[in-house]
Amino acid sequence: MARSTGTPTISDVAKAARVSRQTVSNVINRPDLVRPETRRRVEGAIERLRYRPHASARRLRTRRSSTIGIRLDPVSANGISGSVLDGFLHALTERAAERGIRILLYAANGIDAELAEFRRLIDESEVDGFVVTSTTYGDRRISWLVEQRIPFVSFGRPWGVADMTDRRYRWVDVDGAAGVRMATEHVQSLGAREVAFVGWPSPSGIGEERRQGWIESCGLAPERMAELSVGVADEATEAARAVAELLDSSRPPDAFVCASDSLALGARMALVERGLELPVVGFDDTPVAAAMGLSSVSQPLSDVAEAVLELLMGPDGGVVIDDPDRLAGPTHRLLQPELVVRGEGASAREEGKETCDEDA
Amino acid sequence: MARSTGTPTISDVAKAARVSRQTVSNVINRPDLVRPETRRRVEGAIERLRYRPHASARRLRTRRSSTIGIRLDPVSANGISGSVLDGFLHALTERAAERGIRILLYAANGIDAELAEFRRLIDESEVDGFVVTSTTYGDRRISWLVEQRIPFVSFGRPWGVADMTDRRYRWVDVDGAAGVRMATEHVQSLGAREVAFVGWPSPSGIGEERRQGWIESCGLAPERMAELSVGVADEATEAARAVAELLDSSRPPDAFVCASDSLALGARMALVERGLELPVVGFDDTPVAAAMGLSSVSQPLSDVAEAVLELLMGPDGGVVIDDPDRLAGPTHRLLQPELVVRGEGASAREEGKETCDEDA
Repeated sequence: MARSTGTPTISDVAKAARVSRQTVSNVINRPDLVRPETRRRVEGAIERLRYRPHASARRLRTRRSSTIGIRLDPVSANGISGSVLDGFLHALTERAAERGIRILLYAANGIDAELAEFRRLIDESEVDGFVVTSTTYGDRRISWLVEQRIPFVSFGRPWGVADMTDRRYRWVDVDGAAGVRMATEHVQSLGAREVAFVGWPSPSGIGEERRQGWIESCGLAPERMAELSVGVADEATEAARAVAELLDSSRPPDAFVCASDSLALGARMALVERGLELPVVGFDDTPVAAAMGLSSVSQPLSDVAEAVLELLMGPDGGVVIDDPDRLAGPTHRLLQPELVVRGEGASAREEGKETCDEDA
Repeated sequence: MARSTGTPTISDVAKAARVSRQTVSNVINRPDLVRPETRRRVEGAIERLRYRPHASARRLRTRRSSTIGIRLDPVSANGISGSVLDGFLHALTERAAERGIRILLYAANGIDAELAEFRRLIDESEVDGFVVTSTTYGDRRISWLVEQRIPFVSFGRPWGVADMTDRRYRWVDVDGAAGVRMATEHVQSLGAREVAFVGWPSPSGIGEERRQGWIESCGLAPERMAELSVGVADEATEAARAVAELLDSSRPPDAFVCASDSLALGARMALVERGLELPVVGFDDTPVAAAMGLSSVSQPLSDVAEAVLELLMGPDGGVVIDDPDRLAGPTHRLLQPELVVRGEGASAREEGKETCDEDA
């Protein structure tokens, strides 16, 4: 290729700086071994000649790729909620760049294919570690990575392990229970007394945790809780059907707190159909929530990305730490979400408009 | 590290297969040089020992990384429309995996930082080529990549170049004019006669092209076109304001075709405020359009991803082709979008519900 003609070599740099090739190599790999004055001369020559130590050669030497692997699914898992993982990927790419780290995407169809991909990417020194997302109960990927001593951090707890503080598990997550508690207390502050929870069917680690936040804050008797807690697939139409049933019951709830924006959208649709205006809160603060004027619990994705990198490489490092015991402090972080209030909140009281939507 | 202990080497494979190291190397790199019978024996040993040629060593030998670079911005550029590029990234990762190619993400703050990143990623053989997105008029990245003879394909035309069929430019795009033409003809089939176009301010390559589709199909006199074509920033509130002005004018339009779903959402908001039910069509078929029941023009992202890879590596290849002249056929593809009809279309006539939304 034309562009590789005349690429400067380490010998060119050595000649220009009047030092040995070994000294150039030391300046690049072990600068502490080189006298400052010599180092400056070599660095000047590197700069002048635009010499780039070949990344692959460096990888062979150091077995470091300065790259982190993360799986990307063929399509966003869910049109509405999928944007959270996309948002995380954007934040991760930016934060990693600040540490000189790049993100490698791989595809994998199923768990076994993903384990094979882990193996290959590590064996071939393509990546130094992984970020695992969408963790499930008893996630085989996590137990396998721990067993193989392959560095990783999960965005999402290692659901189902006996001890989540076990240092072999490095994880970052957002406190879903706290988020739903905030949502429940918010609709209570608007006057709601009988707050329903619209979540997913069990078992779902994330879903159960979010439901827990409602259980802790709804202030209802256990029998009433059983009536006002529903679990449906993460689709607006499913949620609309379940919410319609609650609304048409003899004792309808007076607010809806939901495990996702898809579910919240469904709740809103059921309310609109009946001409009712009751508070609805979603989760994940997706563009749909913003567009629909729905309040929603927001995950701090940039902070999640930063915490993931800290648990992988230390507070400021650019090198993946293989042994979690070499990290200072806990090997996990539970971050707090925020409630974004729209529409039915305080400001809506002033700005709210009465309009009729024939299409909704 | 524990995991590298006992990793089989090329010598282990040679010994197990009773051949020289050179023969093993030939089987891996130049299999055509090796007799089939010997090749099978070596491949058996590679399989049995789980030998993996070290990727970095292979990169040094071949100067190939089997990796393609693409920039990812800190956050999705636009909450609603940004999901198109995210959707493309998902499709690209999957399609690339089918060819044994991985996607490397990098961040860059501004054009100069991106050019530096191109340089570094190529010089260090981190990637074999690039996919460039969000192309602009006179895009400096594109002229630079062409000048440096660095392989790339853009998703988006090289707006502003004299000859878009010039083989040095490899690009894939979706025919935005055709999409807006379909949208305009759709609302006309519903009875609309005075279709307005809500686009962005000039100059925007994509925006002008989409407007062109409306110009070709709206059937209005030039003075009337000037009245019914508006250009605003890509935000629902901006579009709502502009559409409200048109609706409150002495001769309001009877349908709205929009350059994005954000704009379509704004148009819908302005209509709902006035209790009007006129057809609105968006562009990009984002989750917001689906959630709001808005018709929208959809880009075939999986086909775009496949076409990008074909222009980079040939119809089935897994190796980036440096010289576009070595590709058979044209070096660009203009793909056709689809119109996704919702709500005000035929099915809405049957399913449409009259409901009142106090919150919208």
